[in-house]
Amino acid sequence: MPECRFPFARYPVVTLAHGAGGRFTQQLIRDIFSAAMTDVQADQDGADLVFQDPPDSRLVFTTDSYVVSPLVFPGGDIGKLSVIGTCNDLAVCGAEPAYLSSGWIIEEGFPTESLFALAQSMALAAAEVGARIVTGDTKVVERGHGDGVFLNVSGVGVRRFSCHPRLIQPGDVVIVSGDLGRHGACILAQREDLQIQTPIESDCAHLWPAVARLSPLAESVHCIRDLTRGGLATVLAELSETASLQITIERDQVPVSKKVASVCELFGMDPLYMANEGRMVLFAEPSREDEILESLGASARTIGVVSEGRGVIACSQLGGSQMLDMLSGEQLPRIC
Amino acid sequence: MPECRFPFARYPVVTLAHGAGGRFTQQLIRDIFSAAMTDVQADQDGADLVFQDPPDSRLVFTTDSYVVSPLVFPGGDIGKLSVIGTCNDLAVCGAEPAYLSSGWIIEEGFPTESLFALAQSMALAAAEVGARIVTGDTKVVERGHGDGVFLNVSGVGVRRFSCHPRLIQPGDVVIVSGDLGRHGACILAQREDLQIQTPIESDCAHLWPAVARLSPLAESVHCIRDLTRGGLATVLAELSETASLQITIERDQVPVSKKVASVCELFGMDPLYMANEGRMVLFAEPSREDEILESLGASARTIGVVSEGRGVIACSQLGGSQMLDMLSGEQLPRIC
Repeated sequence: MPECRFPFARYPVVTLAHGAGGRFTQQLIRDIFSAAMTDVQADQDGADLVFQDPPDSRLVFTTDSYVVSPLVFPGGDIGKLSVIGTCNDLAVCGAEPAYLSSGWIIEEGFPTESLFALAQSMALAAAEVGARIVTGDTKVVERGHGDGVFLNVSGVGVRRFSCHPRLIQPGDVVIVSGDLGRHGACILAQREDLQIQTPIESDCAHLWPAVARLSPLAESVHCIRDLTRGGLATVLAELSETASLQITIERDQVPVSKKVASVCELFGMDPLYMANEGRMVLFAEPSREDEILESLGASARTIGVVSEGRGVIACSQLGGSQMLDMLSGEQLPRIC
Repeated sequence: MPECRFPFARYPVVTLAHGAGGRFTQQLIRDIFSAAMTDVQADQDGADLVFQDPPDSRLVFTTDSYVVSPLVFPGGDIGKLSVIGTCNDLAVCGAEPAYLSSGWIIEEGFPTESLFALAQSMALAAAEVGARIVTGDTKVVERGHGDGVFLNVSGVGVRRFSCHPRLIQPGDVVIVSGDLGRHGACILAQREDLQIQTPIESDCAHLWPAVARLSPLAESVHCIRDLTRGGLATVLAELSETASLQITIERDQVPVSKKVASVCELFGMDPLYMANEGRMVLFAEPSREDEILESLGASARTIGVVSEGRGVIACSQLGGSQMLDMLSGEQLPRIC
C-alpha cells in the first residue's frame, strides 16, 4: 500500500463537500486518487493531459461505464473491472491500450478507505497492461441517489493491426479464448449468496497480451470481439448480422467449467448468454487454426465455422440444432 | 425532430432489459441514441471509432461526469451541459474539440421520450462546435439506485496553441469573459422553486469559438481556465498555488447581473463562488488587454492583476480586502 496522507479517521465516509469542486475535492483527488495511482498519474497541475501521439498512428477511442453490483467480487472489483473492460474494448480492435480516463460518481456516505482500495485496483490494472490514467473527474450524489460507486473509464489506444466484422469470411473458423460464463456465474453466486466451497472467480483479465501475441498472424485473424454482457450468443448474433453471414457452432465444443455449468443449471441460465470479462471470440483462416490455438493456450477451443447464409446455429451432439438470437430481456442486471 | 422509430407507446420508460446488452439495448442505441445523433454518429457497426489524427498534432484527452439536478433547466439540460462542459475543458487547453464519447447511466423507469430529448440536445451541442460523438455506452440501474440520468462525456481535442498555469507571469492582467454566476443561480432558483418573472438562464455555452478567435494572440494569452464548480474564487486559488504567484482582483469590477446578485443575496451566497458553464478567466500580457477584451465582447472585463507573492486578494472600492480561498465544504450539490 503506497503512503496515503488522507485522514481516514476524520473523514471515514465521502460527503457531498467532496464533490463540490473546492478544497475537499482537491484533498480527495490528491490524497486518495493520486496517492493510489502514483505510477500512472500524468499531470499534477490539474490540467488535462496532452500526449504526443506516434507519427502515422491510428488512434482508437472507446468508453464504458461500470455499475457492477456487488462492488467487490471474487477475482476483482469495480476498479479493476473498469480498466480491464475498457482496455479489452481497445484490444479487440487491435489497439494497444495507451491512455485512460477515470470518472467517479460516488454516493454520499461511501467509505473513504474503500474508495482508496478501488483506486488502487484501478491503478494496478492499468499498470499491468502499460496504460496510463491521465485524466479524471469526481462527482458526489446524495445518499439514496446512487449506489456506492459508479465508474466510467474511457480509453485511447494505438492500433497495431486491423480486424473488423466486415472482414469475416465464409470458411473462417470460430475460436473462443477460454472457458465461458465465469464472470456472470461469479456475480450471480455472490448475489444469491450461494454457499460454494471455493467461490467461482470472475475471469476478469486483460485481453491485450493475448491479442499482441497474435499480431504476427494478424492477416489471418479477421475479427476479434470480447464477450461481455449478453455472452457469446449475443456477440455471435450481432456479428452474423453485421457480416451478413451464417455462424454455426457445436454447443458441446464450447468450454464451460463444471462449477459454472452447475450454477447455470441451478438458475436456469444458458452459459452461452452468460457474461465474461476476460474472454474473446476470434474469426480466422482455418489454415492458421493450430497456431492460433497454441498461442491462446490450453483452454482455447475451436467451436464453429462461418458460411454463406444468415443467423447463428448451435448444434448439439445429439443432432438437435437451435437458432441463437441476441439476449432478449434482461438476464442479470448490473453485471458490469 | 429527426425521424424516430422507437416505440415510445410500447416502452414509455426504460427497463432493466434496456441495460442488459441484448436486443433491447440494441434498439435503445439504434432508435434513440443513433436516431437523435444522426449527424454525429461515426460507426454503425457497433465497433469503436478509429480516427486518423492529423500529422504532428498534439492531442488532448479529458473526461467529466455529469449529475446535475434538475436534468432540464432554463438554458439547457444534462445532454447539452455534458457536451459543453467537456468541450470547454478542451478549449481552455487551447484544443479544438474533435471526438467525444457518451456514457449513460439510466435509472430504471426513466421516460424514453425524455431520453431521446437529452440525446438530441447532446447531438446539437456537439454539432454546434464541430465535434463528433464517436463512441458510447449504456447502463441501466434499478429504480432507486440512480437518479434519472447520469452522463459521462470524455473528449479528445486537437491542440492549436499552448497555455498553462505555469506560463502565468507577474504583471499579467486577469480577464473574465462575461458576467458570472448564472449557472449556479439558475440551478439554485430551480431547486428552491423561486418565482421569478423571467427565470435566470444558465450561461451554458461553448468556449471554443471565443478561444479560437484569440489564437492570433496566443503568444500573449498565458493561461485560460473555465469557471465551473467552485466558481472564480476556487479557480483563482488553484492557479495562484500552481503558479506560485499572487492574484489581486477588484471585487467591484467582477461583472454580475442584477438577477444573479439578488439570488445570491437571498441565499447568502457569494457570486465569486457560484458555478458557471460558459465563462472563462484569462491571464494575458497587459499590452494586449484591449484587443483581448474586444475579441471577447461587450461583457468581458479586466478584473485584476498578477504579482509576485502568494494567494488571492479581493479588494473592494470601500478599501477593504479579503483573502479568497478555494470553496470549502459544499455550496450547492449536483450543480453539474
